[in-house]
Amino acid sequence: MDGAGSWHGGAAAVVTLTFDVDAETPILAHGGRYAGHAGTMSHQSYGPDVGLPRILDLLEELEVPATFFVPGWVAERRPGLAASIVERGHEVAHHSYAHRPPTSMSPQEERADFVRALEVFALQGIEVTGFRAALWEASWATADLVAEHGLRYDSSLMGDDRPYRIATAAGEIVELPVHWSLDDWEQYAYLPEPNIGSVIESPRKVLELWRAELDGMRAYRCLFNLCAHPFLSGRPGRAMALRHLIEYARECGDVAFARCRDVAAAALADPQVRSRPHERPRVDPEIHPY
Amino acid sequence: MDGAGSWHGGAAAVVTLTFDVDAETPILAHGGRYAGHAGTMSHQSYGPDVGLPRILDLLEELEVPATFFVPGWVAERRPGLAASIVERGHEVAHHSYAHRPPTSMSPQEERADFVRALEVFALQGIEVTGFRAALWEASWATADLVAEHGLRYDSSLMGDDRPYRIATAAGEIVELPVHWSLDDWEQYAYLPEPNIGSVIESPRKVLELWRAELDGMRAYRCLFNLCAHPFLSGRPGRAMALRHLIEYARECGDVAFARCRDVAAAALADPQVRSRPHERPRVDPEIHPY
Amino acid sequence: MDGAGSWHGGAAAVVTLTFDVDAETPILAHGGRYAGHAGTMSHQSYGPDVGLPRILDLLEELEVPATFFVPGWVAERRPGLAASIVERGHEVAHHSYAHRPPTSMSPQEERADFVRALEVFALQGIEVTGFRAALWEASWATADLVAEHGLRYDSSLMGDDRPYRIATAAGEIVELPVHWSLDDWEQYAYLPEPNIGSVIESPRKVLELWRAELDGMRAYRCLFNLCAHPFLSGRPGRAMALRHLIEYARECGDVAFARCRDVAAAALADPQVRSRPHERPRVDPEIHPY
Amino acid sequence: MDGAGSWHGGAAAVVTLTFDVDAETPILAHGGRYAGHAGTMSHQSYGPDVGLPRILDLLEELEVPATFFVPGWVAERRPGLAASIVERGHEVAHHSYAHRPPTSMSPQEERADFVRALEVFALQGIEVTGFRAALWEASWATADLVAEHGLRYDSSLMGDDRPYRIATAAGEIVELPVHWSLDDWEQYAYLPEPNIGSVIESPRKVLELWRAELDGMRAYRCLFNLCAHPFLSGRPGRAMALRHLIEYARECGDVAFARCRDVAAAALADPQVRSRPHERPRVDPEIHPY
Repeated sequence: MDGAGSWHGGAAAVVTLTFDVDAETPILAHGGRYAGHAGTMSHQSYGPDVGLPRILDLLEELEVPATFFVPGWVAERRPGLAASIVERGHEVAHHSYAHRPPTSMSPQEERADFVRALEVFALQGIEVTGFRAALWEASWATADLVAEHGLRYDSSLMGDDRPYRIATAAGEIVELPVHWSLDDWEQYAYLPEPNIGSVIESPRKVLELWRAELDGMRAYRCLFNLCAHPFLSGRPGRAMALRHLIEYARECGDVAFARCRDVAAAALADPQVRSRPHERPRVDPEIHPY
Repeated sequence: MDGAGSWHGGAAAVVTLTFDVDAETPILAHGGRYAGHAGTMSHQSYGPDVGLPRILDLLEELEVPATFFVPGWVAERRPGLAASIVERGHEVAHHSYAHRPPTSMSPQEERADFVRALEVFALQGIEVTGFRAALWEASWATADLVAEHGLRYDSSLMGDDRPYRIATAAGEIVELPVHWSLDDWEQYAYLPEPNIGSVIESPRKVLELWRAELDGMRAYRCLFNLCAHPFLSGRPGRAMALRHLIEYARECGDVAFARCRDVAAAALADPQVRSRPHERPRVDPEIHPY
Repeated sequence: MDGAGSWHGGAAAVVTLTFDVDAETPILAHGGRYAGHAGTMSHQSYGPDVGLPRILDLLEELEVPATFFVPGWVAERRPGLAASIVERGHEVAHHSYAHRPPTSMSPQEERADFVRALEVFALQGIEVTGFRAALWEASWATADLVAEHGLRYDSSLMGDDRPYRIATAAGEIVELPVHWSLDDWEQYAYLPEPNIGSVIESPRKVLELWRAELDGMRAYRCLFNLCAHPFLSGRPGRAMALRHLIEYARECGDVAFARCRDVAAAALADPQVRSRPHERPRVDPEIHPY
Repeated sequence: MDGAGSWHGGAAAVVTLTFDVDAETPILAHGGRYAGHAGTMSHQSYGPDVGLPRILDLLEELEVPATFFVPGWVAERRPGLAASIVERGHEVAHHSYAHRPPTSMSPQEERADFVRALEVFALQGIEVTGFRAALWEASWATADLVAEHGLRYDSSLMGDDRPYRIATAAGEIVELPVHWSLDDWEQYAYLPEPNIGSVIESPRKVLELWRAELDGMRAYRCLFNLCAHPFLSGRPGRAMALRHLIEYARECGDVAFARCRDVAAAALADPQVRSRPHERPRVDPEIHPY
């Protein structure tokens, strides 16, 4: 099938490899007091310090592009980090400033956090065109913020497994949907305090899970929007699993790799990409108490 | 063996594929405040919007009937949904109005919720003959409500793995028992807030679990009453696992597929289907404090 | 090797198949209020009503003996249950009255619960010679109670993987140790309220786990003291796994099956069975706050 | 490649088998009241009483060296334990006195606990050169304490997967990093009260996980710093898995086994072992509330 002009370009599935370079922020968002936990902080700094360079080398070797969602706090604290990603041909995108979920902030706080990260990227000369909310916990205002600030896509929602359009107060954006089954956090993360995760899975199981989902997505022509974290998937055995996944996808012969910004641009130009309603359900407190 | 007149019709096991079309309700039943969580709401709307059509297509292709338990709130909010299921030859059944567990409501609340959903279905011209409680958390009054309103079966209890009769204040009904091992929720569901689920399993493991249970049930002539959710099993890799399960069951050659209402009717007409006691155990607060 | 006079009789490993016929008690011990939860109660009554007969048939077919630990409350509520087990050549043993952990009771409560169950068994003409604490949460007084009432063994502790002697205030008893890795509860149990369990494992994984442990125990000459529950392992696919485990053990050729009481008697008569200290560690509240 | 003078000696990966001989301490650190739980205490005493001798025999048979981290409280309560480990050619290292995480203690408490364990080892004539914090929950003062008391390495942090240098107020030490994926606790531990663990994994899965990580580490020349516990990995089926892991590593032909102290000495002498920053991140309470 000819895919000219379509978001998928004729591929059976499109793979966007995305990496959330969270470093210390998800833990500090649990509580600033965890800055005093040296062990836990080292568990997080492994991401930018060891996992990230390893993943960049792997992507270069396999010649696939990727998108890195970076919190502003992380970009600010490690000044050369975002630029070093862009230099290798990848995309850097907006992942909040502090990695606090929008649903845990007031509208004013969400806006301030959103803008502060934009300022960091502007100062560093990093052009961002997409956004992902911390923990994917977008509020109903999040998409408005994205559009209002000229970004073209969000990647926090789960309303489909293909790109879809969202109408916002500031115009239309495209959603590149995510899902917990394509996130390494749920499979690999474990910390006793703050208490995170249940059982640590083996890379083989995770590879099996992701391959099954990729095969399903090839049958239904979907966006395989993988979300990995350098502090998790950057570890040796897991980096090997990531390599196997990428190699498998390439061997399929019908899978395309792309950066999120490129998929978003193609989706916005494809009239067959549908729009989905994006509004808060009305709740009757008699029926569903607060 | 000839099974004429028996609930199983001579099959080694009977498969009832059931889908709980919960949409946003299980989350809103945790707290109406979650309506403000756009990410979480999109995780749930995926069910009716993407998962349900995919599952309906799969059932049509494989030519197997199924039963869809729909909360009244969902049927009301998406007016054509229930009818579109019935049109394709499947059954729609009563799954409460608000998806609140009966054990979390007063008797008056449970009754009001039960009746309100009936009114929705009546208004939409959907004839329902069976009921399933939210979270399978039936109260001791639930079966009475089912019988009193002329329904013929309940599918919330776990007192056997074959249909059984229950005597209620309003006459006899049949129970089509469920079990957590045949529910996709426990295997696939994950959300950080409200915090749901532990580790996300791979479709291969779930298929292995369900095939093992089906094989066991074929040996013991049971009702394989699968409970899946469009927002979970409608995802690509899981839909493939569901396809493999159905194909495996068909290849067995000794398995029958049926809608719940048909199994219920057959069971009520089969004198060998036994009655099981259905009464609240007496508890001594000295022995088992409240 | 000749094992005459030894607890193991020359076998590489001894298998004691034990079944805790808990019925409703573990849930009621969480809170008597759960008697009002019809779904949860049916989940538990499945054990004595469906799982137990199935397991008894399986044991008969495979010609292996077993031990059934029954709470007094269960024996009392289902008057013929204990006798029906004994009639088929198995052992019934003491599993408390109410299934409350000794560590959650005062010494007076623990004693009263212990004696009350003994009275039930005496009334029913069931001779019990061993005890198992609810949740294996023995107090330091538990072993004293066991010895004081003339029982010969306890099966609640985890201080070894071979039988060992314990000195009590009322004389010596033998411990037939248990362990969570040989318990089906941890693998299969799941309930939303009270919230029990994490992910439901497949019978294949459980069989793999138990076979691995049995192979290890054959290498180290241990007691494979399996603890299963009719409401869990009595389900079809799991009963098949149990069958495969027993068949595997028989095929090994070096494994013996026995009732707990027989292992206990052999262990008490074997001078090589060692004694292990059984006393509460002294704790300094400055070092380990309460 | 010639590895003379390097920390790895030319091996593709270096394996340090470490065993945390915690006995009762992790539970008592949850609460001294658990001393009254006979079942739970027996679950822990299995470690030094049964698991430890089994592991020592296994290591002797396979001719590999190991490092045992022992809390002072355990060494004191079982006077011959530490010496019996050293006599068999292994290393004993400092694992706190009471197994309380430094992050849960005041600086004064952490120091007192640290010194008290040193005194126990001095009294027993055990020379220790390295430290590991309970639960790996080091504070920022922990490394200072290690250096100040003349120890040469810490093994509690996760900032890399190769040895690295840390500058402290009292001079430089080397870090031998750990990670939860190489800890048996997270895979095997389960107790109902205190509530520890989720699902018990099979030894086969754990072996698969560790082999995958070892293969990855061989590709990236890392330190495979395994952390096992005698009360967990000393059980029969798990000891077999440990045996298979060691045998696999030996068959690789490019893996070296070493005690932690030897790796630490080699790393300190290797100028290519890098230094990593070791300081508390500055947190703005407006951004990351306490």
